[in-house]
Amino acid sequence: MNEFSVTILGSSSAIPTSTRFPSAQLVSHNYKLFLVDCGEGAQIQLRKNQIRFSKIHHIFISHMHGDHFFGLIGLISTFNLLGRKMGLHIYAPMEIEQVLENQLHVTQTKLNFAIHYHFLDFNTRSLIFENKELEIYSFPLNHSIPTCGFLFKEKAHPRKIKKSVLSKYAIADSKFEGIKQGDDFIDTEGNLIPNDVLTTAGNPRKSFAYCSDTAYSKTLSSYIKGVDLVYHECSFMEDMRKTAEEKMHATTYDAAQVAKEAGAKRLLIGHYSARYKDIKPILLETQSKFANTLIAIEGLKIEV
Amino acid sequence: MNEFSVTILGSSSAIPTSTRFPSAQLVSHNYKLFLVDCGEGAQIQLRKNQIRFSKIHHIFISHMHGDHFFGLIGLISTFNLLGRKMGLHIYAPMEIEQVLENQLHVTQTKLNFAIHYHFLDFNTRSLIFENKELEIYSFPLNHSIPTCGFLFKEKAHPRKIKKSVLSKYAIADSKFEGIKQGDDFIDTEGNLIPNDVLTTAGNPRKSFAYCSDTAYSKTLSSYIKGVDLVYHECSFMEDMRKTAEEKMHATTYDAAQVAKEAGAKRLLIGHYSARYKDIKPILLETQSKFANTLIAIEGLKIEV
Repeated sequence: MNEFSVTILGSSSAIPTSTRFPSAQLVSHNYKLFLVDCGEGAQIQLRKNQIRFSKIHHIFISHMHGDHFFGLIGLISTFNLLGRKMGLHIYAPMEIEQVLENQLHVTQTKLNFAIHYHFLDFNTRSLIFENKELEIYSFPLNHSIPTCGFLFKEKAHPRKIKKSVLSKYAIADSKFEGIKQGDDFIDTEGNLIPNDVLTTAGNPRKSFAYCSDTAYSKTLSSYIKGVDLVYHECSFMEDMRKTAEEKMHATTYDAAQVAKEAGAKRLLIGHYSARYKDIKPILLETQSKFANTLIAIEGLKIEV
Repeated sequence: MNEFSVTILGSSSAIPTSTRFPSAQLVSHNYKLFLVDCGEGAQIQLRKNQIRFSKIHHIFISHMHGDHFFGLIGLISTFNLLGRKMGLHIYAPMEIEQVLENQLHVTQTKLNFAIHYHFLDFNTRSLIFENKELEIYSFPLNHSIPTCGFLFKEKAHPRKIKKSVLSKYAIADSKFEGIKQGDDFIDTEGNLIPNDVLTTAGNPRKSFAYCSDTAYSKTLSSYIKGVDLVYHECSFMEDMRKTAEEKMHATTYDAAQVAKEAGAKRLLIGHYSARYKDIKPILLETQSKFANTLIAIEGLKIEV
């Protein structure tokens, strides 16, 4: 089974509180790290959670509201002060480049590493990253400015060869990789042994979707069908629906509805308005519509 | 006696740690608030210390290194979200304007209050603010880019009229204000009573100086003679003097030397390199040269 986890670095909406930081989450997949949004103080939260800065190579910024990127310039400055040489990939709206370059300029900072910008497409679902084990997609959300969510989806796992067949058919080591990928096998007498006799299914493809900020969107669920864990913002409780709709944010019921429509196994909520001192009622109200709901708090680490 | 205090919001140098934030201090004089530097996370530290955001009207930025201003855009955004209408005065290098305006632009933020920029002069001591009770001066420091310190100095307090003289000379209420300011008095028989017979000296003029970032500067003390409390950066201990000098930062002995030369009553040190897990040795080394030294930690409030 792959390592696949999400750590909450910030659970607040636009205004942070004394205990809640602006949006940032760390996704780890087989110990490769992906930072999703980077609100003010994200680098301090990374430290608190003992995340090694040198292992972060990919940063995803959902949109150009400050509570999702004001921490990025500080993190990049720290990378540089720590002697970073490895390039950094930033997946973000194109305006991020001028914000960073302007601040690097006025602070007379010459980076010792390259920033590779990958600008987001806000119109459709797009594959923006892949390695051998993982694909990352951006997809459009429904907010007051162009905003993307991000889907982290494992690639198909290789099938598992049954131990019992190895000696029975005298399968050479050189054939293993092909059989794991679905090849049939021809034994020494010329008989074709179908793959499903030789193997069992690989581990299920786990997935995590990050949806912030967004009002309820009917199309959203189509981008993340069958997701294992969906983070959906939940800025307001149901009695503030009017405010939520005006600001193009979601309520408890909106988040639950999207989780249901997507067929998600679990829902994670966050991005609470600073007005909520106690967040337990937000959890309870969401759970009344979608039982398998978790609530984001700083430092929480969830296995996907 | 006037209320006059300094609260530490950030004690770290350029790289924050899990517990130490970048530079920011809050000066309160008769409950008027002055924010000095605004590193990343300053707004969270203000919350933790229960400072009312609506009472902050003046912000001072010493120089354009990110650990001294990366928190400013977030604080301004929060001011706006909280419905601020009152103008905000920012005393800073001129580059601060483009940094803020650029980020307000890309985040499509229309502020509901005015920002009044006051650009610093890095060549000489300058009066940059005054009210009835307080003067604030900027003065040049000795850093790798143009940098100012700030001196908060109370105006002369009115002299105190001796109770015994009120009935003796039948002094009318209307004369009180003048006598407190140093006027002599002419009694009903035409005799001139000198002011020093009528009054005793007012409370002493307290002062606080903020010096960060700076290498040792021989001229620095001339700007802050007789200061009650001087904050002087102390990024490194003495065994790192070479590094300190290369980076144009101060050591323990440098901070102590400036405090001595200025005739300061007390020295406050901060801006420690992230390499120091334990800051007590920094305090002890400074105290070996200047006994009356305090050490900055987040949340510490010092009466001037």
